[in-house]
Amino acid sequence: MTSQTAAAFLSDNAAPVHPRVWQALRDADDSDAPYDGDALSRRLDEAFGVLFQREVAALWVATGTAANCLALAATVPPHGGVVCHREAHIEVDEGGAPGFFLHGAKLLLAEGEGALLTPSAIAALVDPIRDDVHQVQPHAISITQASEYGRSYRPSELSELAAFARSRGLALHMDGARFANAAAFLRCSAAEAAGDIDTLAFGCIKNGAMGAEAVLFFDPCQADVARYRRKRAGHLQSKGRFMAAQLLAMLESDLWLANARAANAAAAEIASACADRLLHPVEANELFVRVGVSEREALRAQGFGFYDWGAEAARFVTAWNTREEDARALAAAIAAL
Amino acid sequence: MTSQTAAAFLSDNAAPVHPRVWQALRDADDSDAPYDGDALSRRLDEAFGVLFQREVAALWVATGTAANCLALAATVPPHGGVVCHREAHIEVDEGGAPGFFLHGAKLLLAEGEGALLTPSAIAALVDPIRDDVHQVQPHAISITQASEYGRSYRPSELSELAAFARSRGLALHMDGARFANAAAFLRCSAAEAAGDIDTLAFGCIKNGAMGAEAVLFFDPCQADVARYRRKRAGHLQSKGRFMAAQLLAMLESDLWLANARAANAAAAEIASACADRLLHPVEANELFVRVGVSEREALRAQGFGFYDWGAEAARFVTAWNTREEDARALAAAIAAL
Amino acid sequence: MTSQTAAAFLSDNAAPVHPRVWQALRDADDSDAPYDGDALSRRLDEAFGVLFQREVAALWVATGTAANCLALAATVPPHGGVVCHREAHIEVDEGGAPGFFLHGAKLLLAEGEGALLTPSAIAALVDPIRDDVHQVQPHAISITQASEYGRSYRPSELSELAAFARSRGLALHMDGARFANAAAFLRCSAAEAAGDIDTLAFGCIKNGAMGAEAVLFFDPCQADVARYRRKRAGHLQSKGRFMAAQLLAMLESDLWLANARAANAAAAEIASACADRLLHPVEANELFVRVGVSEREALRAQGFGFYDWGAEAARFVTAWNTREEDARALAAAIAAL
Amino acid sequence: MTSQTAAAFLSDNAAPVHPRVWQALRDADDSDAPYDGDALSRRLDEAFGVLFQREVAALWVATGTAANCLALAATVPPHGGVVCHREAHIEVDEGGAPGFFLHGAKLLLAEGEGALLTPSAIAALVDPIRDDVHQVQPHAISITQASEYGRSYRPSELSELAAFARSRGLALHMDGARFANAAAFLRCSAAEAAGDIDTLAFGCIKNGAMGAEAVLFFDPCQADVARYRRKRAGHLQSKGRFMAAQLLAMLESDLWLANARAANAAAAEIASACADRLLHPVEANELFVRVGVSEREALRAQGFGFYDWGAEAARFVTAWNTREEDARALAAAIAAL
Repeated sequence: MTSQTAAAFLSDNAAPVHPRVWQALRDADDSDAPYDGDALSRRLDEAFGVLFQREVAALWVATGTAANCLALAATVPPHGGVVCHREAHIEVDEGGAPGFFLHGAKLLLAEGEGALLTPSAIAALVDPIRDDVHQVQPHAISITQASEYGRSYRPSELSELAAFARSRGLALHMDGARFANAAAFLRCSAAEAAGDIDTLAFGCIKNGAMGAEAVLFFDPCQADVARYRRKRAGHLQSKGRFMAAQLLAMLESDLWLANARAANAAAAEIASACADRLLHPVEANELFVRVGVSEREALRAQGFGFYDWGAEAARFVTAWNTREEDARALAAAIAAL
Repeated sequence: MTSQTAAAFLSDNAAPVHPRVWQALRDADDSDAPYDGDALSRRLDEAFGVLFQREVAALWVATGTAANCLALAATVPPHGGVVCHREAHIEVDEGGAPGFFLHGAKLLLAEGEGALLTPSAIAALVDPIRDDVHQVQPHAISITQASEYGRSYRPSELSELAAFARSRGLALHMDGARFANAAAFLRCSAAEAAGDIDTLAFGCIKNGAMGAEAVLFFDPCQADVARYRRKRAGHLQSKGRFMAAQLLAMLESDLWLANARAANAAAAEIASACADRLLHPVEANELFVRVGVSEREALRAQGFGFYDWGAEAARFVTAWNTREEDARALAAAIAAL
Repeated sequence: MTSQTAAAFLSDNAAPVHPRVWQALRDADDSDAPYDGDALSRRLDEAFGVLFQREVAALWVATGTAANCLALAATVPPHGGVVCHREAHIEVDEGGAPGFFLHGAKLLLAEGEGALLTPSAIAALVDPIRDDVHQVQPHAISITQASEYGRSYRPSELSELAAFARSRGLALHMDGARFANAAAFLRCSAAEAAGDIDTLAFGCIKNGAMGAEAVLFFDPCQADVARYRRKRAGHLQSKGRFMAAQLLAMLESDLWLANARAANAAAAEIASACADRLLHPVEANELFVRVGVSEREALRAQGFGFYDWGAEAARFVTAWNTREEDARALAAAIAAL
Repeated sequence: MTSQTAAAFLSDNAAPVHPRVWQALRDADDSDAPYDGDALSRRLDEAFGVLFQREVAALWVATGTAANCLALAATVPPHGGVVCHREAHIEVDEGGAPGFFLHGAKLLLAEGEGALLTPSAIAALVDPIRDDVHQVQPHAISITQASEYGRSYRPSELSELAAFARSRGLALHMDGARFANAAAFLRCSAAEAAGDIDTLAFGCIKNGAMGAEAVLFFDPCQADVARYRRKRAGHLQSKGRFMAAQLLAMLESDLWLANARAANAAAAEIASACADRLLHPVEANELFVRVGVSEREALRAQGFGFYDWGAEAARFVTAWNTREEDARALAAAIAAL
């Protein structure tokens, strides 16, 4: 087992760039219109519109953090609040970026199994908020598809969430860092895996891109403002053609879906070997597995890389490039513990 | 003349990626440590330390705007001010990004020939500021090397500016989007072309990189805070190895200098043909040339691309890849007007 | 001449509280509904609506700075800009407060005689702003009535400014720290002295109040958001009844106008004695008078207090409580120089 | 029972102004040095220094929200976090003001009986925070004395908290909206009731003032910056003498303590009648009393005013002016339920 394999299950966030993305990057070098004035950037709205079967404005940015924050800033004023799960990435892992991009707006933390939100969990959080100026009022809900625990919202659950959001006058944002994995798991269209949301951070970096995510605004007017915010945040790259090229390569022939399927398949392979140890159903490409200290040591001694998840468990993440034999080897190793 | 040439003098900000940068990007794909934990990112401090012959902490970011703003945020509190030239890029062309990253800190605008600042011009601006809470107090000076009009500060001028800044308790930042062009023009070391500054946005994107600039903190403690700010601004890319790879490729065998020399040489070629039309001495890779409306039409009819600069002039920018024959052609065309 | 008189022409910003304001404060102590839920606060909309003959929402705040900033925040997003005069109070004397309340929005500085703006001066500033994300776009205009040099906009000038603002899609804010003085000078109604503006910081503190200004939103919907912003800025006082009491006392029997007339009359008295020395026509309660160093010394030796205005002039400000004999004394003293 | 009495136990935040404060306000009208340049404002540092037996810089502001936020901004950078109780006033009732004044810094919520924090509760919150840029790092702790449930930290508890804060490199702030009530309850000096804190929002408004609180910086250097922030937040009143006058009146002959004792005595009177119904020990001037729906109706029918506290309880607050007979009447009414 090589040293590369040793890290293979740590995360998908630093996985290699897919060959077709490399090719697209090279092909993009010819153009030289700056910023997002190039031909590739100008194709994004249409390409994502086809994928989601709705009108949409698509902007590229370099990170999922920027994508989430630019999306949220479109619907939440500085004095407002965003409902999200207590373990949402925007709350736990983005270094306070929402506070920066939203000028101090507040994250309001709801509970839910598997880092999934439900209308009732959100209602339990927002209903006690007094409708007065002393309390921060919710303006949006942010959900993560697939969730931080690798769970995927079903289309029916998304419908309920969207209806709830509408009924409360709240915008609905989706952190789709692993949207592709959710769509692949759900075996549904992108539109169905998204539901009636307002904004989506469509993740590509964990799925084969180099450094480009798409922020989608299903109300294209919001993108007009977001373009100013993107520039103001230092996220308008002058060679934007390389950003657009990555996104288009991911959409081309559904590479985004193929890559996610490969990652999910590897995760499923491992899951099948340790069903009784799983903390959460595996509905994407992450596994949270109950393994004790000595068991983790044993796995690491065999060259497997992964993060501890609290004292009694570990997180394994597969990626588009996870080799079948590595997934099988890990499955076998866990089964043999 | 191809359609590519037609745009050749519009700007350097969308120039192609240098082959050695491409190679470095490909080579970087092997590693998969996320964020800036990879081996390449960890080499940056040393590599820039060697170049500048001082201790320095170097962070990669995707744009010059982010580089300038992260640097300034290190020395200017939200209630403070930054002295810059009235035509500085941070004032004119960054979409208000300093206001965002510095939480509303204010740019204080000084005058100066060629977008260059002098101690006396800065003193004229800051001396009348009353030392009370009603007026925003200056905390830093930002200069641009080479300036927005393609002028380069001499080492002696930098010494005077640094001494002045120290005497007033002001930090000194350098926007080095075209630092390489200044250093090439000055025929001095990087250290001499920078002088005794606190922070430097070391530009690479206009000089052959794809999408990476370096922010240098000559007080490395400031970088410790800047790392949090970078994450918070959504600028911490998970595949940071590709960012570091670009920067290291630029430093390797002084590619940064070679590329800048090539761009400068092309600019000098053109300048030599129109000395009497120049609005500013050509001390980098930009030319501001007095050409009337019909003259500009004539040049465009010949396939040359450039931006108007007000009603009576045009800006021509060369880049690392400007072909000698194109520069000569433009020089001849202007001479023939 | 008493030591109190010695300071009498320094500024109106620390003048005594008018007896009727004191009485209103005492009378307000009975109620104890907190914040702005008291009976006095709830009367403000109507009281100001009567004064301005339009629907309006009125909020109390403790300072003119807060009043201006809350008003501007209602129409200018963080990525936007506010056109104001280069010597506007919000630019020069508010410690960067607009940058704070507007989350980094930018003040765009126009020129104009007497700190007055005109449509053509504003056009000269905003027309060259490229309509792209690299440049901060104007969203509002802020004018000061009376201006920082004691000049008053005529109703016809206000009409032109309002028409211009509408034609450019810009909101129009009025800093009315000395609105009463302008209205008194113009001998017109409050509505005419304001014109077709969107928001007004209606000054009372310089005119006899203790510590209350009114922010007026002629689109009452904007006040709904401003109430959240006021709380968030720590400006929602729990004993708001004392704030409202001051404002209502100022409106009662047009005390605001009577006080301003008294101040203006004192200024006119002084102006009549030094017409040839005036830097600006006296159209409110401020005088900018050309007096040399030794002349200023002579005046101070006689016990007059005032601020130097540059090297060759002085600023004298009268207030509601300036005694006729003091004004005459100063007039005589200047005449005798 | 008059209609005024009906509201008597709703809150202390809108209580009348104490006669000695009124007198001080009137006496302050003579001076006219603006902002905080008046003689009264200049006496504050010394007056609070005597009270707390340490060097201190004291600034007046109009609200407790502004006081807390200016204090916190002195020790917490925009990318940092503040540990506070989940039910702390700054989290629950200040309309997101900390997010505004601290430019998006985050409140980190700890648990604790009676809204009191302990070192172990704080450790449980902050220990799991990874020391990396992806997570917001704590920079300060904010405690409330007396707490939001009317509990008072003992000097020994404060020592432990201060030692803990020091050991973790965290600043320690105290929200003292009801600091006087805590000191009165503890029967200790102001210094002992505060402990070794860095900053204190010393509340006066709930205790007899009209609209002035003191922010105390035990490191006076922090006040130098806070003065800029105060101005920038629109909180520098031009007639600051009226602010200082209130604070000095509160300190004079320990009015602050006498008023708090009166409020506490009234609360104790009521508490003694319903010890078995108390949700929290009464250690200041607030009572949280278990009373059902019909019981609350009965009390209200008798003219008592108070807020519901969830479905099964009510909050009663006494103030400096609560009449003994009213307290006894309420005690009797509850006892008779």
